[in-house]
Amino acid sequence: MIIGIDIGGTSTKLGLVDQGKVVARKSLPTTGHASADAFADALADAVGQLTTDNEPPTGIGIGAPNANQLTGIIEMAPNLPWKHDVQLARMLELRTGIPAVLGNDANAAALGEWRYGAGKGCKDLLMVTLGTGVGSGFIVNDQLVLGSHGNAGELGHTTIVIDGRDCTCGRKGCLEAYVSIRGLRQTYSELDGDPEVLKEEGVLCIAKAAQQGDTAALQTFRHAARWLAVGLANAVAVTGPERIVLFGGIARNGELLMAPLRERFRQSLLNIYHGRVDLVASALPDNDAAILGAAALTTL
Amino acid sequence: MIIGIDIGGTSTKLGLVDQGKVVARKSLPTTGHASADAFADALADAVGQLTTDNEPPTGIGIGAPNANQLTGIIEMAPNLPWKHDVQLARMLELRTGIPAVLGNDANAAALGEWRYGAGKGCKDLLMVTLGTGVGSGFIVNDQLVLGSHGNAGELGHTTIVIDGRDCTCGRKGCLEAYVSIRGLRQTYSELDGDPEVLKEEGVLCIAKAAQQGDTAALQTFRHAARWLAVGLANAVAVTGPERIVLFGGIARNGELLMAPLRERFRQSLLNIYHGRVDLVASALPDNDAAILGAAALTTL
Repeated sequence: MIIGIDIGGTSTKLGLVDQGKVVARKSLPTTGHASADAFADALADAVGQLTTDNEPPTGIGIGAPNANQLTGIIEMAPNLPWKHDVQLARMLELRTGIPAVLGNDANAAALGEWRYGAGKGCKDLLMVTLGTGVGSGFIVNDQLVLGSHGNAGELGHTTIVIDGRDCTCGRKGCLEAYVSIRGLRQTYSELDGDPEVLKEEGVLCIAKAAQQGDTAALQTFRHAARWLAVGLANAVAVTGPERIVLFGGIARNGELLMAPLRERFRQSLLNIYHGRVDLVASALPDNDAAILGAAALTTL
Repeated sequence: MIIGIDIGGTSTKLGLVDQGKVVARKSLPTTGHASADAFADALADAVGQLTTDNEPPTGIGIGAPNANQLTGIIEMAPNLPWKHDVQLARMLELRTGIPAVLGNDANAAALGEWRYGAGKGCKDLLMVTLGTGVGSGFIVNDQLVLGSHGNAGELGHTTIVIDGRDCTCGRKGCLEAYVSIRGLRQTYSELDGDPEVLKEEGVLCIAKAAQQGDTAALQTFRHAARWLAVGLANAVAVTGPERIVLFGGIARNGELLMAPLRERFRQSLLNIYHGRVDLVASALPDNDAAILGAAALTTL
């Protein structure tokens, strides 16, 4: 029995994981707590409610944005309430008595796919999440790539267009600026898409317009496929994964992205990789993927 | 005692390596042999001449372009005489009775820097060779990154400019098309450099012109620094190395490349990597680096 905790910008979800399945769930708001300590108190309470004294969990895995696995610290995450470093793994251990591991949410998702999902059995794997941001996690030689300071695996912040679009990281031309939700909305806008469509938030509105034959919306997905294909092909040239798993809302819009992406990806690959890299969508249940991934952090 | 063999397009160099030093050397032409078998015969002869019966070598490491370490085969290398797959490791084992390992020349160079050179002691390392081509080798978690099919580490063939310059690989916009010798010569030409300068082969002619104040030549190195900085920063975002070692003729031209590169590299890095990645030139003696690297293949 392992506890998996996924800390998001607005809500935190946790679950009790037994042999790769989420058998019980809880959630609490991430925001609105007086301090990081108060949040840790609430989180420890929720953990207690998920567990019984008969069978206490052997570990807690926590996935969070800007979390550094090597230090166990959430480092000044721009999308979380605390503007300072938070030693959340240690804070939770002290409150629950259960060993806790903290890791980057994208790395957690990669581990989840690798242990329980579409990446099972791959010695070399790449997982990419397409959402508000573009996250990634790399498995190389059956190990998660953390890098010398614990912050490797930032494919979303590789430069895809020199002097290109402004990115939230302060630099220009990052993959994230083109294929995140914000990126797709910007592309649709630049293609003179219908402003009415963009009144709805997120990317589902563009997907719906595309399904109704909106030319700018269809083009938006084709452009995204082209940029993403280059980013993925560049990653393949570095670590040579046998499979790439795509995860998140944008990848979930059926064939709108996947059909042009498969075509562009094949064109973008160096010939020695042709036919050697699978490109698949996540196979994990939406609601459980992040929890399973966080739980997988404890199995490293 | 290990034998290191570096197979180049025109000549093959081999050396006897004792505790990280090349203590004896031989060379033979790569071209002009009747067949791959005849070449293997000549190579086995040269190995015999380097060794004594008193202290036979314990292994042979062979670095070659397009060599696949997982299969022990040189796969249709465009710059080598044989237009078919050559099982060189096995061919040499049969002739010498010494266990032989074949590996990609760039991976060999990375191992050489890691075991004996500027990358010693790094858990996570990137080595980039700048020459006729742009090769690279990645060390992650104290292991060489081979990828699922043995062909990882091709930073030279990551796309740096979408729809950019034609590359010898048949694709467009690869880093190699911008920062190899050919790339620098093309940049100098595009900047309306002096055609007289380019009558000399290689890149030393442009370096000499730059040292004499030739504006196009100086700009050529600044442009190369900018493209290379983006390529290196992208690699850092993926594997998070603590050090990058640059190797080869272009990197050796003193500060012409390194000064603008350090500046551009800092600007290109995502903020979480600032101050966390060393950028250094190779510390291995020019003539021995490839032999030491090939020898290091046997220590995997």
